[in-house]
Amino acid sequence: MAFDPASLRYDVAGLIPAIAQDHATGEVLMMAWMNAEAVARTLETGRVTYWSRSRQAFWVKGETSGHVQTLVDLRVDCDRDCLLVRVTQEGPACHTNRRSCFYTAVREGEEVELLRPMD
Amino acid sequence: MAFDPASLRYDVAGLIPAIAQDHATGEVLMMAWMNAEAVARTLETGRVTYWSRSRQAFWVKGETSGHVQTLVDLRVDCDRDCLLVRVTQEGPACHTNRRSCFYTAVREGEEVELLRPMD
Repeated sequence: MAFDPASLRYDVAGLIPAIAQDHATGEVLMMAWMNAEAVARTLETGRVTYWSRSRQAFWVKGETSGHVQTLVDLRVDCDRDCLLVRVTQEGPACHTNRRSCFYTAVREGEEVELLRPMD
Repeated sequence: MAFDPASLRYDVAGLIPAIAQDHATGEVLMMAWMNAEAVARTLETGRVTYWSRSRQAFWVKGETSGHVQTLVDLRVDCDRDCLLVRVTQEGPACHTNRRSCFYTAVREGEEVELLRPMD
């Protein structure tokens, strides 16, 4: 079946969550949001493109930082209201310069930092 | 630092997205939503507990199906507005009886089914 970005289920703001996963390691890197046009651009260009809710603008990941995400595989969940983008990640995915945004664990009630910023 | 579920950033409905990942394989299984109480219950019980938006009720994953998710590690992202729960998943995570909800890929403009329902 041909894929149509309009067939996804977006929230009231017209957005769908997109989970970025390192294709090689399986590491979950970040979660951000796309609108239908960002989904289309991601597929067309192979450069993962989100919608920045704070800036209200398209956000081609790595455009300014150089930490680009190259699309390897785009996946849709059963309810069509969440995306999984499997990517090749250049450098850190997180704006804190860490490889993944999920660098804090909760263990025995305490927050533990798992990753340090990359050099 | 002690972890407090109230320190997370919830949306206007009081919810935060939670990505479930198979701890052993790295496979992303599903994404669902938690409120602060669901986060607390997940940590207290070790049984991953979401908030069902459709039923407006707590959803202890696997409570009726037996396909429970046992918490291995809970992680918080840099913006504190998304969670990653690393789990041991019993059987399929998806209500379609597939291991993962992300069983549809988009390849060359077409939707491709990657996983079949489990026996």
